[in-house]
This record gives sequence, structure tokens and C-alpha cells, in this order.
Amino acid sequence: MSTPTAGPLQILAFDVFGTVVDWHGSIAREVDAMQLGVDGGRFALAWRAGYLPAMERVRKGELGWTRIDDLHRMILDSVLAKFGIRLLPDRIEHLNKVWHRLDPWPDTLAGLHRLRSRYTLCTLSNGNLGLLANMAKRAGLPWDLILSAEVFRHYKPDPQTYLGVADIFGVSPGQVMLVAAHKEDLHAAAACGLRTAFVTRPMEFGPTRQPDISREPAFDHHATDFLDLADQLGC
Amino acid sequence: MSTPTAGPLQILAFDVFGTVVDWHGSIAREVDAMQLGVDGGRFALAWRAGYLPAMERVRKGELGWTRIDDLHRMILDSVLAKFGIRLLPDRIEHLNKVWHRLDPWPDTLAGLHRLRSRYTLCTLSNGNLGLLANMAKRAGLPWDLILSAEVFRHYKPDPQTYLGVADIFGVSPGQVMLVAAHKEDLHAAAACGLRTAFVTRPMEFGPTRQPDISREPAFDHHATDFLDLADQLGC
Repeated sequence: MSTPTAGPLQILAFDVFGTVVDWHGSIAREVDAMQLGVDGGRFALAWRAGYLPAMERVRKGELGWTRIDDLHRMILDSVLAKFGIRLLPDRIEHLNKVWHRLDPWPDTLAGLHRLRSRYTLCTLSNGNLGLLANMAKRAGLPWDLILSAEVFRHYKPDPQTYLGVADIFGVSPGQVMLVAAHKEDLHAAAACGLRTAFVTRPMEFGPTRQPDISREPAFDHHATDFLDLADQLGC
Repeated sequence: MSTPTAGPLQILAFDVFGTVVDWHGSIAREVDAMQLGVDGGRFALAWRAGYLPAMERVRKGELGWTRIDDLHRMILDSVLAKFGIRLLPDRIEHLNKVWHRLDPWPDTLAGLHRLRSRYTLCTLSNGNLGLLANMAKRAGLPWDLILSAEVFRHYKPDPQTYLGVADIFGVSPGQVMLVAAHKEDLHAAAACGLRTAFVTRPMEFGPTRQPDISREPAFDHHATDFLDLADQLGC
């Protein structure tokens, strides 16, 4: 609880891919159902592996502002080529939108509803607004506000995103808590003065790869899921 | 139904102040309860009268990008001076946030829930994101996405706002319908290729001033409230 604050906690800002929804399992299931002759889990990992490098190109200015939908499509085209899969354009476009159809983790909906009874809940995702809105409508995610890198024209971990949440709500950074399954996201938020909640998602990358879920004292909360976080926040 | 379309209607974008919520009645009630020695309805009208001129200053570039919360505060200070009312800074700031606490019209919630069963609902308001999120949370407005002039850094009726909604969702302008109680807003949307639904709100300015609620064939729908609109759209 070492983060400086200037008033009570008001806003919980959620990372989405991996923290709120299970991208690996959702994509693996959809790709397996398409019977493309490739393992869905491997396909999901290959697609996601292109994500950070693509955003880095935007963050460094090598690429102008580009939405995640379009970055996903660029990566998907190369992943399909790598696996030697040919699909009709309509099917590729439909598959690209699987990121709009990701399923929440089992605790997500119940946890968010409890947390929302006391706090204002928003997203802070690198996903674009249309993607996040379609995902929320399909899955029933009860956001009070959908915020995205698209609003700030900066991708996380640029400080404009974390500070932007506080600015949008007219509160101090210490009145906002980032909830995320990714330590680098939380460290960047803490450097901007936000509070931090680390939620472990050991299955984020499927059964073959184990993410770092070790406890770090630098974070204000360490929770095993959103229900545990709701307990810790007294919701 | 003369609007050119390129696909089925998908998105309903709502003007908010006056169309979804009753700013006049809400402000009049709150000001009357403060017992400032001024008629709440007159106060509400004076405050709102400064709104379009203030936004025009931003639209013309006389003023840099300024949020409605801050424009409301500038106008409020001059309205308080005009009425000879002195308040402590905290009370002024609380009063300024009355725009976050506006009540919906009686048909709003039931109408939105019906419309949402078939369409994606978003706001397209000149109100800032924090204001719209606080309003929605308090009133229970079931938006799929809150969009604001703040996202586009343009105020309505600039075309960037109407076209921005279609762009965010990756649909054609003809797949978006603006729902508004204000004809100039709808004409500007139609000029960008959006569909239009005029919803009459005869009490928007209170009992002393009657807005133009006459039917105009240029609009795709003319509805007396959101329930009527839901009927017309088969929801």
C-alpha cells in the first residue's frame, strides 16, 4: 500500500486480453472447430506472438496509428501463410473478428458485478473501441465506460494511457487502480501513480506455457481471480 | 426511407441531453431544492443558453479543445453572477456536476432495453466521457458503448462525429441511425449518410417554451418516445 494517493479509490481500470477474457482458449476452440489441420492452441500462440512487436512498431512511429483489428489482420495473414492455410477472404475476416468473441474467465462476470457495486469499472485495453464494445455486448461485461488506447492514440505501456484514465474521470492517478494479469502493465501504471492489482491467470497461454504468477510486493493487491479481488476490496 | 444504405441497420447512436435525459427538469429540481432565491427553471434555461455559443467558440478555434464540464463551469460562473448568487467553491463545483446527475425521461430505460435487444446502442453526445459514464451508472442507461465529442475532438454538428461512429464500428454510415430530439443534429447526420430518427421531447425546455416538434419527411422515423421508436423498429 505504498502508492501515494490523494483521495479514495474510485475507478478500477481493467486490462482485457488475458485478464478479463481467455483469448487462448477462445481462439483455440474456434480454430479447432474450423478443422484447418492445425492445432488451435499453437495457432492462438502464434497469432498472439505477433501482437507486441506489431504494437511496438506503432509505439516507435514506424507505423502510423493502427487499430488492433488491423494489426490482428496483418499478423493473421502471416500466421496463415506460415501454417500453409488458404481461406476465402470472408472467412479470414470472420476469423480475424474472433477477438470480438472472446469468452470471459469463469469468475469474470460475478466478480465484475460485485466490484461494480462499489467502484466505477472501465477497460484500459489496447483493443479498439468497436472490438471491446462487441465483446462486452456478447459476453455481458458490465463496464461503466469502455476506454481504449484508441481514445488516447497511444498504446500501453505509454503513460498517456494510464494518466488518461484519471484525466477522463477528473480524479488523481492514485484514485485509479489498474487490474491486470501482466506485471509490465502494472509496473508502468504504478510509475504513473496508479494503484495496482495483480490477478493471476495461470492458463492465459494454455496448458503448455506457464506465465510468471509469483507475488510481487510492489503491487497493492495479489488476487487469484476477480472474486478474490472483490473480497480484498470489501465488495 | 430515402437514405442510401449499404447493409442492414446495426448501430443506434443517441444524442443525450434532452433526448435521453431531461436536463431542464433535473436542473430546475436541484436548483429549487438549493433555495437560492431564483426560479430553478429560469436558471436551467439561462445555463443551457450559454451552451451552443461556448461550443461554437471551440468549433471555430477561438478556444482550444475544452470539455463540456469546463464549458459548463464557465457558463455557470457567469449565470451565478447574472443572478447575483454567491456560493462557496465546493458548492459551485457540486452544482456544476448536476449534468452528471440528470434523470432519464420516463420511457428512456424501458425503450433502450427493447432497442438494445436488436441493435448496438451508443451515445453520440457533446458531453465528455466522464460525465456520460457517471450519468449512465447513476441512471442505469444500458449503453453498449459511450461515444463522445471528446473521442473525436470535434463537437457536433462537425461531420467527424457522425462519420466517427461508423468508423469506430467498422460499418457504413447508412448502417448507423442517429436518434435525437434536435432537427439540426439530424440534418447534419443525414448529410453524412446516417439514418435518422426524430424523437419529440416537447418538455425539453420546460413548460414555458415549446420546441419545434413538427414532422419532417426528411427523417426516416418520427417517434413520440423510445417505446414508439422500438415499435417502429420491430423491437
